[in-house]
Amino acid sequence: MATTDTIFQHGTLGLLVPGLFDGTITAGELLSHGDTGIGTLDGLNGEVIILDGHAYQAREDGQVREIEAHETLPFASVHFEKPDVSAPLTDVAQADFETQVVKDYRLKNVFAAIRVDGTFKHIKTRVAPRQQPPYKTLVQATATQPEFSGDNVKGTIIGYYAPHLFQGATVGGFHLHFLSQDHQLGGHLLAFDVDQAVLKVQHFADFHVHLPIDNEAYLQEEFDNETIDHAINKAER
Amino acid sequence: MATTDTIFQHGTLGLLVPGLFDGTITAGELLSHGDTGIGTLDGLNGEVIILDGHAYQAREDGQVREIEAHETLPFASVHFEKPDVSAPLTDVAQADFETQVVKDYRLKNVFAAIRVDGTFKHIKTRVAPRQQPPYKTLVQATATQPEFSGDNVKGTIIGYYAPHLFQGATVGGFHLHFLSQDHQLGGHLLAFDVDQAVLKVQHFADFHVHLPIDNEAYLQEEFDNETIDHAINKAER
Repeated sequence: MATTDTIFQHGTLGLLVPGLFDGTITAGELLSHGDTGIGTLDGLNGEVIILDGHAYQAREDGQVREIEAHETLPFASVHFEKPDVSAPLTDVAQADFETQVVKDYRLKNVFAAIRVDGTFKHIKTRVAPRQQPPYKTLVQATATQPEFSGDNVKGTIIGYYAPHLFQGATVGGFHLHFLSQDHQLGGHLLAFDVDQAVLKVQHFADFHVHLPIDNEAYLQEEFDNETIDHAINKAER
Repeated sequence: MATTDTIFQHGTLGLLVPGLFDGTITAGELLSHGDTGIGTLDGLNGEVIILDGHAYQAREDGQVREIEAHETLPFASVHFEKPDVSAPLTDVAQADFETQVVKDYRLKNVFAAIRVDGTFKHIKTRVAPRQQPPYKTLVQATATQPEFSGDNVKGTIIGYYAPHLFQGATVGGFHLHFLSQDHQLGGHLLAFDVDQAVLKVQHFADFHVHLPIDNEAYLQEEFDNETIDHAINKAER
């Protein structure tokens, strides 16, 4: 089952939009589908960063801790790491990075994992604050979020590029998280400038979505594609 | 690898919209991912119906023939059949069928295979006409299509229900094909009335999309989600 050609995704970004934040897969089960990835915890509780088989939570109080196998997630994407591209990066701004990576590695219509290990002149993240039921919508829940930043930070950007056709099922375009080497800074990546780093890209032919079809709230929800599209552009960029 | 929880889809409905009709998977490879399903052949050449491990082409001239393992397809969905619901149907009109099946089997946000074996008072199908490169768009290519119909026909409806969130990746809602027992009538199902039949529904937790990431035309195409959405609603309903 361990294939390096496949992104495994539990849930959809779309299900977070109306506020289906209950965890529906355990971290233990998730890690059987990949050793690297991103997600969020039950209750939209922070940002999940998965590196080398370990899942970490960046919390709204700025702390980072390792997630236990029994904890649950409503949404996460993972893969088994085996990059097919490795390239040095020096002095690269975020906007140039995204444009260049899509162009150089021909990502436009292809799923890919993006990992950047190195030193960053600047990093800015945000962390979704933990929600209590009855849940608000994603846009309401993320209207005010703590932001964190650092200069000359060593760490890892990890996340995905997805074809825009799959917006709703996931985030179309880039969806990147960050974790510093010393675990003092993490979260959903808002801004970065690369000083010296190594970029690794892993192209996937296969996108495997696992849906929580035993979850009553998921079965009942009336999703609206346009609402989902707008909410993702607002909450996940 | 043979799981009954997964729909395997090669390509996206979206890639057919601008006219990427070249086959990018062989029928032999496709059948290793499922024994039942639907699709179209290289060049948008007719409608594919896969039943019990055999793939058939309904051609624009009205003939039905079995597809050989080396033939290729740009788009197809398959699964290994193991229905979790079986129910008799008597005197059911198409509109009632679709509404009732979504409601009774809670399909709204769930992928499912739909199979109906029995006698139909009326069946109407259409068959996409074979295209030659340079390809037209899907809407242009299907603007005029041969239609076929029959009364008191024995046969099988096969296809899928997909959550509307996945419109573009596939057809959101129902996408059904038909093949008569005597192989004299087949195609994309436009209209039907059930006389006496048995409905089988198979719910899937997993949707697995395989993309043609080695295909140059696929890599280069500039897809537009809104154009794709409209084209699917026009060409695939």
